[in-house]
Amino acid sequence: MDVGALVFDVFGTVVDWRGGVAREARRLLGDRVDAPAFADAWRDRYAPSMDRVRSGELPWTPLDELHRASLDELLIELGQDDVDEPTRAELVLAWHRLDPWPDAVPGLTRLRRRHVLAPLSNGNVALIVDMAKRAGLPWDVVLGAELVQHYKPDAEVYDAAPRLLALPPERVLMVAAHVSDLAAARGRGLRTAYVHRPGEFGGRVDPPAADPDADLSVSSLGELADRLGAQA
Amino acid sequence: MDVGALVFDVFGTVVDWRGGVAREARRLLGDRVDAPAFADAWRDRYAPSMDRVRSGELPWTPLDELHRASLDELLIELGQDDVDEPTRAELVLAWHRLDPWPDAVPGLTRLRRRHVLAPLSNGNVALIVDMAKRAGLPWDVVLGAELVQHYKPDAEVYDAAPRLLALPPERVLMVAAHVSDLAAARGRGLRTAYVHRPGEFGGRVDPPAADPDADLSVSSLGELADRLGAQA
Repeated sequence: MDVGALVFDVFGTVVDWRGGVAREARRLLGDRVDAPAFADAWRDRYAPSMDRVRSGELPWTPLDELHRASLDELLIELGQDDVDEPTRAELVLAWHRLDPWPDAVPGLTRLRRRHVLAPLSNGNVALIVDMAKRAGLPWDVVLGAELVQHYKPDAEVYDAAPRLLALPPERVLMVAAHVSDLAAARGRGLRTAYVHRPGEFGGRVDPPAADPDADLSVSSLGELADRLGAQA
Repeated sequence: MDVGALVFDVFGTVVDWRGGVAREARRLLGDRVDAPAFADAWRDRYAPSMDRVRSGELPWTPLDELHRASLDELLIELGQDDVDEPTRAELVLAWHRLDPWPDAVPGLTRLRRRHVLAPLSNGNVALIVDMAKRAGLPWDVVLGAELVQHYKPDAEVYDAAPRLLALPPERVLMVAAHVSDLAAARGRGLRTAYVHRPGEFGGRVDPPAADPDADLSVSSLGELADRLGAQA
């Protein structure tokens, strides 16, 4: 494969959203909630909240705002509607403070020597920038949903990557732990690499070990660097 | 000043376009042209070419394509219309291969510890990414004209910086060597810092030592880091 740039799904593929959100929930809400279950319940509202934008029911709304609206709903559902405003604002920032999977920074650092690296996430730009600065994720450029005001899997998000990087789609490799994201990317002509992240959902979902439709399937970003011939 | 992010003009402010374009003209065109004069003549077509987009005469056109069109015109004017296609394509890439002013990388590296750093250039994303990888410019995120399909000084370019960084405009500091760029940024509520770059035009233009309307005037990005209290 003659790959010029790699674009990455972020939540679940590069960072552990469940562990990070649970950590912040524990810190900010203490015994009010079961922290991992709270992370799961918040994440369960993620796809439906974006679908309201994708369908046109809501105008373009950055992910931080969707996270805040679904947090407010969740706190009502959990009988915790007395959580104060500053705590809610801090909780939304949990998504800016997610830790990378242990292989992510070393793998990206190797891949970056020969390739342009960009997140192609539904996270808004400020979220992705905060996360990268805190975690040391070595992106060359931040791409993703907010730049085109569409959420994945809308075609506009995938199409913007080769357009802005001035590459043909077949020289852009989409890397994700979710087969649906990769299928949508392939539909727009991008190459695809699947990363197996069995810990993403804490056992609630058992992702496949490989994606037979992807160009590559790997179990870490280090293995992806190996497969693409990046120097150790 | 409580600055969250710094956004930078690039051509002339961070990199020496004249020296870099002249170097590539010398390499690719040899004795066919006077290299510094060639760089000046090409750059002279820069503002008029963007004005054709800004006025609506042309649809959105990335800077690489404007550079190519003005190169073709210039070669005719210089009686060098026999320059072949691969050489023209390489010449356009001269703008991706500009060297930073000597203070730029050390200054940005210091500033980056406490602030989000982004180019806010009329250069297209691929150009800015190529330049940063070659020169080691430590951007956190690439902002600029192509993301909003407007050229500076259109308001849309400046407005996109605080919007995408989720900051109020007064917490974004625009850094540029051109008073007109800073005036447009101030018009959109951004803070401004002027950098004196007396070598930018090779003596054809004598820029002022300071901009009395800017929040700060400095003579290097190292001095900017000093003024903002960045650690040495």
